[in-house]
Amino acid sequence: MIELYHCRDARSFRALWALEEMGLPYRLHTMPFPPRFQVPEYLAQNPLGTIPLLVDGETRMTESSAIPHYLATRHGPSPLAVAPDEPDYGLYLDWLHRSEATLTFPQTIVLRYTRLEPEERRLQQAADDYTQWFFSRLKHLTRALAEPREWLCAGRFTMADVCTAYALLLAKDLGLDYKFSPEIAAYWERASARPAFLAAKAAQKA
Amino acid sequence: MIELYHCRDARSFRALWALEEMGLPYRLHTMPFPPRFQVPEYLAQNPLGTIPLLVDGETRMTESSAIPHYLATRHGPSPLAVAPDEPDYGLYLDWLHRSEATLTFPQTIVLRYTRLEPEERRLQQAADDYTQWFFSRLKHLTRALAEPREWLCAGRFTMADVCTAYALLLAKDLGLDYKFSPEIAAYWERASARPAFLAAKAAQKA
Repeated sequence: MIELYHCRDARSFRALWALEEMGLPYRLHTMPFPPRFQVPEYLAQNPLGTIPLLVDGETRMTESSAIPHYLATRHGPSPLAVAPDEPDYGLYLDWLHRSEATLTFPQTIVLRYTRLEPEERRLQQAADDYTQWFFSRLKHLTRALAEPREWLCAGRFTMADVCTAYALLLAKDLGLDYKFSPEIAAYWERASARPAFLAAKAAQKA
Repeated sequence: MIELYHCRDARSFRALWALEEMGLPYRLHTMPFPPRFQVPEYLAQNPLGTIPLLVDGETRMTESSAIPHYLATRHGPSPLAVAPDEPDYGLYLDWLHRSEATLTFPQTIVLRYTRLEPEERRLQQAADDYTQWFFSRLKHLTRALAEPREWLCAGRFTMADVCTAYALLLAKDLGLDYKFSPEIAAYWERASARPAFLAAKAAQKA
């Protein structure tokens, strides 16, 4: 059975949501954040101490925006992945990568320098710089949704939406959602109303 | 013909190198860095002003670690991509994503706060924090190469190597290569000796 190491509402939520979208059986290990300090024995599983860690037979993965696409193709075929011969294939891959490298990483800098570091190591300038950076990337998301589009690519909900909507979940947690455009707010409502999203939320509370 | 908007040795080098590995014809537009200030007309092509921008018919992509995989699958099949039914498929996807989200983004913070920002906005602490973060991720690369492995997955050179070796090129540019382990130094030598790497280097000088 697939195993997932997870912290509540952290990046591993992408993998959890993707497992629910695929309807695959899994065993969930929910840990306190950050696990590298709070669950030292986890370092034997993942020396970096980061989450997610997905274990699927011989496959071990730690990149949260790679795992949903992996599940939809290794355990597919599934309409949750976009295939190479579809017109929106490049757009789909772009959103998978952008969701983490461009929409999530800047938020982790804000989180670090406003909440995780001790008072004397906080850096308001870095937090402000990367908040602005995140907002400029949100504008790109607004433009994409304003065409208009219900989902990001291929005219259907895909793993690109799982990965991108997670970046919005994090933004809400950080209080950055006051900059959501009407297009982004409506997209978030659609994504977070999906039965698999709600099932993932319930699973991490169990 | 495929068009690539590029700045010398910037992240778009991944796309350029991948085009050379695939042997695909392309037209290269090399611009000064950062183009959003230096080439304002580029904003009509890419409102974010970032590079790369790859235009392939109706497909437009801007994520540097998504483009090599796109080229190897849309214009494949090619042994430069790892297929879903191969044992190392998950590992391959993980390295594609890790190359940017984990190995490159922290370096861009170092670059910003040590070189790109004006003196009064430089933040040595942020640069030091993300230098350490990068070094901890380099250890993960050393462990992977020490198994030992010539290339990162599937027993052959793949787009995961293109994307990851670019992070090492950036580290050399930033003077962070003094922390390269012998395994990483040898891997860099192998990657940067490839004919397609040298052809990409020559193309951007033309």
